[in-house]
Amino acid sequence: MRLNKRLFCAGIFMIVSFSLYSSAFSFIDQIKTLRVDSERLAQRIETLAEYGKTSEGGVNRVAFSEEDIRSRSYIISLMKEAGLKTCTDEAGNIIGLLEGSEPSLPPIAFGSHTDTVPDGGKFDGAAGVLSAIECVQVLRENGVKTRHPLEVIVFIDEEGGLIGSKAIIGTLSPEALEVISHSGKTVREGILALGGNPNALDGAVRKKGDIAAFIEIHIEQGSVLSSNGIDIGVVEGIVGINWWDVAIEGFANHAGTTPMDKRQDALLAAAHLIIAVNEVVTGVPGSQVGTVGRIRAEPGAPNVIPGKVVMSLELRDLSAGKIDSLFHEITKKAAIIGEQTGTKISFSTIEATAYPTPTDLSVRKIIAESAEELGLRYIFMPSGAGHDAQNIAKIAPTCMIFVPSIGGISHSPQEFTPVKDVANGANVLLHTILKIDQRLAK
Amino acid sequence: MRLNKRLFCAGIFMIVSFSLYSSAFSFIDQIKTLRVDSERLAQRIETLAEYGKTSEGGVNRVAFSEEDIRSRSYIISLMKEAGLKTCTDEAGNIIGLLEGSEPSLPPIAFGSHTDTVPDGGKFDGAAGVLSAIECVQVLRENGVKTRHPLEVIVFIDEEGGLIGSKAIIGTLSPEALEVISHSGKTVREGILALGGNPNALDGAVRKKGDIAAFIEIHIEQGSVLSSNGIDIGVVEGIVGINWWDVAIEGFANHAGTTPMDKRQDALLAAAHLIIAVNEVVTGVPGSQVGTVGRIRAEPGAPNVIPGKVVMSLELRDLSAGKIDSLFHEITKKAAIIGEQTGTKISFSTIEATAYPTPTDLSVRKIIAESAEELGLRYIFMPSGAGHDAQNIAKIAPTCMIFVPSIGGISHSPQEFTPVKDVANGANVLLHTILKIDQRLAK
Repeated sequence: MRLNKRLFCAGIFMIVSFSLYSSAFSFIDQIKTLRVDSERLAQRIETLAEYGKTSEGGVNRVAFSEEDIRSRSYIISLMKEAGLKTCTDEAGNIIGLLEGSEPSLPPIAFGSHTDTVPDGGKFDGAAGVLSAIECVQVLRENGVKTRHPLEVIVFIDEEGGLIGSKAIIGTLSPEALEVISHSGKTVREGILALGGNPNALDGAVRKKGDIAAFIEIHIEQGSVLSSNGIDIGVVEGIVGINWWDVAIEGFANHAGTTPMDKRQDALLAAAHLIIAVNEVVTGVPGSQVGTVGRIRAEPGAPNVIPGKVVMSLELRDLSAGKIDSLFHEITKKAAIIGEQTGTKISFSTIEATAYPTPTDLSVRKIIAESAEELGLRYIFMPSGAGHDAQNIAKIAPTCMIFVPSIGGISHSPQEFTPVKDVANGANVLLHTILKIDQRLAK
Repeated sequence: MRLNKRLFCAGIFMIVSFSLYSSAFSFIDQIKTLRVDSERLAQRIETLAEYGKTSEGGVNRVAFSEEDIRSRSYIISLMKEAGLKTCTDEAGNIIGLLEGSEPSLPPIAFGSHTDTVPDGGKFDGAAGVLSAIECVQVLRENGVKTRHPLEVIVFIDEEGGLIGSKAIIGTLSPEALEVISHSGKTVREGILALGGNPNALDGAVRKKGDIAAFIEIHIEQGSVLSSNGIDIGVVEGIVGINWWDVAIEGFANHAGTTPMDKRQDALLAAAHLIIAVNEVVTGVPGSQVGTVGRIRAEPGAPNVIPGKVVMSLELRDLSAGKIDSLFHEITKKAAIIGEQTGTKISFSTIEATAYPTPTDLSVRKIIAESAEELGLRYIFMPSGAGHDAQNIAKIAPTCMIFVPSIGGISHSPQEFTPVKDVANGANVLLHTILKIDQRLAK
């Protein structure tokens, strides 16, 4: 049951004078029944998906593209409708601010991103941004004023490497500004096109204490929730990601004239290693994952025994220690494979490594409590993907709320989350915000 | 012991009037002691290697290149020195002809090619051509005239797909003429550059009966001879080569968010299949080989589970039936792998398939007999690589003589065959020619 109509008349009188929890305790029970408007949320997801819509029903709205720029005007209009004051920070992030009753408190922030991968879907990022705006709008419509200011953040270029959140925590490097994004623009050019100022990024930086808490709703992008009938994933942390380049050196030779027992076939060794990676990663309990996604065999002709293979290895887990021990096992197996196949296998670490980021225990508990009260099934789970939340976690108590991805599909036109599920997540966010607002000393 | 000095004086008187085996039986024992001049052969191998010599000590003399064209003048000069009348046929093949004592007989032909792969070695092709010329020169120097005319053939563009020998048997297609060769020229342009006439290729065609027999010396390109201390490989046949494109369809998904037990990893399936190919091919006795030399995983990013893999499969054997049965076993294993990994594995045959070509049994026996008489260790073995001989086998009794490749290395600057071994092969060729000349009715 939604309260907005019932509370609307009362709200317009109370909005100026009441800070709910400090002076209106009689509303607590009514507040508990606050719900987002799932129809409005659904309609906005569809409208936002028009920006960059593809013939396959997907969305091509890469950061800094024309579609991205146009969609931001739409987002800003929704923020204004929700009562948020909007601005664009120096990095181009959209900031929507709603004042609280205690101006000295730092804001409770929440949000996500609206850029997509090339040929992505409607939900990745968009679900989080529209849920965040919806929460503010519901509070406003119901005359609920929080103690803390509320802040909706729409990060730029998440898919290009969490660019907007990096700028906010001050780790966006000068080199990253020169990277050419999917739009064809460099990140620097893109930030300019969004109305930011790449020469004054310091202005976008927030410090510890500047944000009271940060929460991001996102689609799971995996199938754990959907295949188990779970409504909400309370994210325990964003996994660490370690990448290696694996080089396997054998000996290229004529595929017709080299007997089978005289070969040093780098691709045969690679095949054994790919299977070993799978066996090591699945050989211990837990949610760790390991992937070989890229492979190149040289010289790469059907009639030449591969003399060299270069392939990627990626390991992810919430525990850096576990990643280390899995990698150690893999290198042990690689040594045996190298010996058996007459090849030399070496691993070199790639810079892109991300450390595991645990989420804030208190915020995590509040999210779980909110889901519980809403009668939703929830689990604690890791985020296997990177998110802006992992950057903001460095300066503020942070957590994420996952909603199901049907079939675990993401970054694809087939990406789908039922409106009901998005609305569940938005309701959890709404009540998480209210609880944090009530409980945090500052 | 070489006879050329001893026989030189006698030879100049006899060369016009004697057909050795018909009218000079008293020479037979002396003829048996005829040997090629291994120093001259060694020096010519080095001189030919100057044409296209690379800084790594290899040879870059791809068909139709300037180096290829210049080297042909050198070859023609050697042919003339050996007493051969030279011409270039319509395909650009160099033909060197020495008259026999019975003008009605078809020629006994022998030869190979002088083009190399990009960054190849000194011996592939070159050893065969120079040995062929050396045989004629030794016969001429020793005043030995055969009944049959002798013909040295230097085939064009062997490395581009046995082009010269295809032209000789009339199977060079119009499409093949338009293929761009390593030189940058099309085959048509290349033939023109060599002095051929691509519009009159019919003139180069030979029919059954036009050639009495054909023998090609070639380096083994494998390590069977060198690693077993064998001097001569008597080639039983050129293996059939079957190529397939193997497509493995899984499901591309996020490498961070897709649990290990929810994956349909096309590269993991490919790894199992690569190992299955190796197990099937090595699981039965014989000299069959199987190779996966090319692989592509899509989308090919370290953080995406490969949704599709396309790879090559090549099987070679002297028996087409054995290739069929190996392939059948591989497809059976592929079906199981597909089921276990949630992928779909399909095989499509590539046109490049070559049928096995057995060599002529009589010529094979004569080669073995010659090796035996020369006190050389020999074995019967397949050729795992394709050679011009496999085309000429379609119109004439054909066989090949293999000499050792140290370490089995070929198509590389490291390709090496000791002069002694090349000379062994040339001596076997010399005595094979003489025996065929004596024994063939025509």
